[in-house]
Amino acid sequence: MIPIISIVGKSDSGKTTLIEKLLPELTRRGYRVATVKHDVHGFEVDREGKDSWRHKQAGAHTVVISSPNKVALIRDVERDLSLEEIREKLIQDVDLIISEGYKKDTQPKIEVFRKGKHKELLCTKEDHLIAIVSDKKFNIRTPCFSLDDAKGLASFIEKKFLTLKREGDVCLKVDGDGIPLSPFVKSILTKTIKGMVSSLKGGDPARCIEIRIDGEEK
Amino acid sequence: MIPIISIVGKSDSGKTTLIEKLLPELTRRGYRVATVKHDVHGFEVDREGKDSWRHKQAGAHTVVISSPNKVALIRDVERDLSLEEIREKLIQDVDLIISEGYKKDTQPKIEVFRKGKHKELLCTKEDHLIAIVSDKKFNIRTPCFSLDDAKGLASFIEKKFLTLKREGDVCLKVDGDGIPLSPFVKSILTKTIKGMVSSLKGGDPARCIEIRIDGEEK
Repeated sequence: MIPIISIVGKSDSGKTTLIEKLLPELTRRGYRVATVKHDVHGFEVDREGKDSWRHKQAGAHTVVISSPNKVALIRDVERDLSLEEIREKLIQDVDLIISEGYKKDTQPKIEVFRKGKHKELLCTKEDHLIAIVSDKKFNIRTPCFSLDDAKGLASFIEKKFLTLKREGDVCLKVDGDGIPLSPFVKSILTKTIKGMVSSLKGGDPARCIEIRIDGEEK
Repeated sequence: MIPIISIVGKSDSGKTTLIEKLLPELTRRGYRVATVKHDVHGFEVDREGKDSWRHKQAGAHTVVISSPNKVALIRDVERDLSLEEIREKLIQDVDLIISEGYKKDTQPKIEVFRKGKHKELLCTKEDHLIAIVSDKKFNIRTPCFSLDDAKGLASFIEKKFLTLKREGDVCLKVDGDGIPLSPFVKSILTKTIKGMVSSLKGGDPARCIEIRIDGEEK
């Protein structure tokens, strides 16, 4: 699963600016990063009159615009998606997801704090605060980085989230809902499936196996 | 798997207009439709200066903008994606995908043809042409619909693509690549996994089972 980190902070604390500094630092190290931004007011990402805009106006649930170097997708949702849902439904091929905001979500958080603008931190330990980026020294155990130390913060993120190898991770969903698995069941599922798949052409070695079974077999 | 249909035709034949007529007809019948449009020239889907635009400029591989009623995603790709890749990587929660264009792709095609503008059909049977929408009568076996018969065309699409139940469909991927499966292997995979899953709490009955196994089990 792709790790998610939320950059949070009161308004005007410099969240976007911090992300702008972090992204080149992480991409320079070879990581691909996705960002997620919440927009309460809705947004316009397509231009009136364009074919894709006309498709959406005519009732398309999802519109995809594809070009040789980038792809855009606009789709309807029934409610705000959580970061986990966004990861699951939309994001692929990246090493890390950084959200701007999403203070109420359950993901690990880095708070941006400016002493000239704010009095108290937005997050507590209960909010899963893992680091502070600020021009103030805090006397707490949470790691602190100065506002211009994107390098230090990138190293912290790299160490904490990007060098861990996932091992024996099994995810099972039935009709879209995750099924909790005990270590014993994980092990029996993994070994049985790996055993079957390894005897297929192209099935060995396998770092990641994905299977989807739909409908009734006759 | 979500069925894909391509609306093709020479330039200025009225592909977007046909899609604009088809979409309300299909959504009225309760189907969710995604559309795909190719844009050779690249596109701008975000506005300069917006936070999400700044993320992309700073090097984000993927940018997601999320709101309570719609979500947008812009991501880098290394080359033009095929319709199958777009379906697999990006599209969910719809019943049908309609592409505008993509004549070279292998999906079933509906050609829009105007006798005042064109001399010959763009597609042949080899292009997997399944219907023609035109103001001209064609003396071929392929079903023809008039330019304003969105209802008739929607019924044709509905009958051909939307009322088939998927049965015993198994998809296996190893490290991202699909592995071809013989009916025997499909059956053994399905029965073994269904058997194991059915004994788990929440695992029975199961219309769709998805499993992802990552990394090495220790």
